Amino acid sequence: MDTLKLEEIAAGALRAARRLATVKSAAKQGALLAMAKALRTRQSLILEANTLDLENARQNDLSESLLDRLKLTPQRIESMAVSLEQIAELRDPIGEVVRGWQHPQGMEIRQIRVPLGLIGIIYEARPNVTADAIGLCIKSGNGVLLKGGKEADLSNRAISEILSRAAYDSGLPEGCIQQLPAERAIVDAMIRLDRYLALVIPRGGSALIDFVVQNASVPVLETGVGNCHLYVSSSANLEMSQRILLNAKVQRPSVCNSVEKLLIHRDAVPTHLRSLLDALKEAGVEVRGCPRTRIFDPSVIGAVEADWSTEYLDKIIAIKIVDSTHEAIDWINHYGSQHSEAILTASLEEAQAFTQQVEAAAVYVNASTRFTDGGEFGFGAEIGISTQRLHARGPVGLPELTSTKYVIIGTGQSRD
Amino acid sequence: MDTLKLEEIAAGALRAARRLATVKSAAKQGALLAMAKALRTRQSLILEANTLDLENARQNDLSESLLDRLKLTPQRIESMAVSLEQIAELRDPIGEVVRGWQHPQGMEIRQIRVPLGLIGIIYEARPNVTADAIGLCIKSGNGVLLKGGKEADLSNRAISEILSRAAYDSGLPEGCIQQLPAERAIVDAMIRLDRYLALVIPRGGSALIDFVVQNASVPVLETGVGNCHLYVSSSANLEMSQRILLNAKVQRPSVCNSVEKLLIHRDAVPTHLRSLLDALKEAGVEVRGCPRTRIFDPSVIGAVEADWSTEYLDKIIAIKIVDSTHEAIDWINHYGSQHSEAILTASLEEAQAFTQQVEAAAVYVNASTRFTDGGEFGFGAEIGISTQRLHARGPVGLPELTSTKYVIIGTGQSRD
Repeated sequence: MDTLKLEEIAAGALRAARRLATVKSAAKQGALLAMAKALRTRQSLILEANTLDLENARQNDLSESLLDRLKLTPQRIESMAVSLEQIAELRDPIGEVVRGWQHPQGMEIRQIRVPLGLIGIIYEARPNVTADAIGLCIKSGNGVLLKGGKEADLSNRAISEILSRAAYDSGLPEGCIQQLPAERAIVDAMIRLDRYLALVIPRGGSALIDFVVQNASVPVLETGVGNCHLYVSSSANLEMSQRILLNAKVQRPSVCNSVEKLLIHRDAVPTHLRSLLDALKEAGVEVRGCPRTRIFDPSVIGAVEADWSTEYLDKIIAIKIVDSTHEAIDWINHYGSQHSEAILTASLEEAQAFTQQVEAAAVYVNASTRFTDGGEFGFGAEIGISTQRLHARGPVGLPELTSTKYVIIGTGQSRD
Repeated sequence: MDTLKLEEIAAGALRAARRLATVKSAAKQGALLAMAKALRTRQSLILEANTLDLENARQNDLSESLLDRLKLTPQRIESMAVSLEQIAELRDPIGEVVRGWQHPQGMEIRQIRVPLGLIGIIYEARPNVTADAIGLCIKSGNGVLLKGGKEADLSNRAISEILSRAAYDSGLPEGCIQQLPAERAIVDAMIRLDRYLALVIPRGGSALIDFVVQNASVPVLETGVGNCHLYVSSSANLEMSQRILLNAKVQRPSVCNSVEKLLIHRDAVPTHLRSLLDALKEAGVEVRGCPRTRIFDPSVIGAVEADWSTEYLDKIIAIKIVDSTHEAIDWINHYGSQHSEAILTASLEEAQAFTQQVEAAAVYVNASTRFTDGGEFGFGAEIGISTQRLHARGPVGLPELTSTKYVIIGTGQSRD
């Protein structure tokens, strides 16, 4: 697809998005329920497309974990439909009066929540992202350009065709949902569409995100890279440390809010480290460590510099012994990805220093990092976890997909 | 200055900014008051530097209006000092609990306002921006890299040296304020410092802003281009139309919230256009117009296509006769810069259509666009007017220079 054709699609989607911005809440809700229903009634089309994607993927020797992410089942399609129904029931952020006041000369000033406009989503091989992203964008009144991974292209196309047909049949503006070809070159062109796109969200590995940040003229929302730390201070409770470490590392190692590094205060080493290591090994976690960790337990693999900034997304952890909470904080601010960071401590002073000084979207005291999630935070749904500071930080739900405008109603006022 | 040296300065400023982030509100307030005092007591140094800048500028044949923007007087320095005192007295946004709730498993979740980190400001020849930008960044806990225009370089250097010395003497972290060399090449390097800068704000003409948007890897806040419209509908009051048109066009033509275009409904032409044209001409405004306007008054200069998207910043206006409010709205959404747009009408239906459908940071009914201003909105001070949708839209005050983080305090919770 050439750039001109892409611009034409984007311009059309933006025109549709502008009409969508004024569609009433009840109409959007009705459309989302119809879209969920369409997923169910046309499930076989999606499964057929997915079977073809899976066959191609096997011929291209994709790994089992990628095949698992790609694979759709009736249960997975059902959960996509349920997710759309949940999004339908969320409170519509559009039209909310964020605040309002009276100007001294008597005009009413109101700040009102409005859609961003047209949002670009670049994602990899998980077809459920197609339905989630469409649902969240439609509910927040935004048009959406989707560019998925080529491995899932037929599945993504089936899902977005079913959803957009159901949306338009329910009265939403034709063209506000656009699935772009799954060609790598589309990314390059898409992230330069600043005339049309209000925002681009890259969902994928850090290489994709870095490429988009470095090359986009469209504003970017960085999501998802989580090199998260759990810091066991000298006053940490042993049983709590074991339990939270296992939860944060093992419950679901492939997600961004799982812990990748364990920092432990030197004073906690004699009492805590043995049982933490045993628990990790029993859970099948590969343990790497700093030189002092290896002195404590020579069976630990030596960590290299690259380990400290790596997001494993796997049953691997690296352990670093630190001399102070101050060192732990500096370490996290140096190597962390500003996602989720946790301290286990009985000390109020340590808890305060950690929460104030650690730079991250979510900072935990005596709880697992696994809670950084739109659902857990009560947002109902999320499009990712923002690790940047601008616009939105942490779970990105519906309000984070909006902007505001000021409406000022006067009776003829001019400025002195 | 080479890129390595610039990175070193940025890294040092970011380290200082991280310390500034935890400085208490009273300490920042005290520093800002000391900075205002230093401007007054060391005024002669600034005036001497400014005299040299003015001499250079005259030798380089700068226009009178640029010389006026560059020129400092004791009164202008006093107003910079007063502005710093006003910023000192504003409520500190840092540490504000934006919202908070309890997770079903009992953790306390709080969303807390924190600084962005290090902010880059690129600006042209107005030295007062140096003091305002430093004041707003310090109050909001952010470090600041400033890159001003070369015409004002000696003045900017004098101001930022006096302010940073006063800030550090008051106990703020050394290095959190950095005036960069006024070389064009610095802009290219600065906007790629995404490892250090949380945000870059280009303050200047649309060419500068476009260059930064197209080439920055640092997130950008677009400010200030205002191609603002006043739409006189068929039900607009004549006296109000004259008064608001003159206020919005003539009170201060060189600023971004002044009106550049007049749209008038064809039904208002017979009753309103003659007296609006007379009022504009009497005020010394050059009037350009669409073909129908020129049929009405052949003395009007013909507008060319480029006129409709131009921000004149001068006593020039272009007039377009439209057939409907719908046409006016489409015209504004096509040619406008999403800054400030106004309708004059007695019709509730027209007012609602206009405020809902016009895409701009501020949309006015029966009031002058000149009110789009941090001071007028009650924000106390502003660093510009954002015309983008992401992060901040409209006047950018202290809260818009911040981010948030989630702090979660538990008692050992892990995720099921």
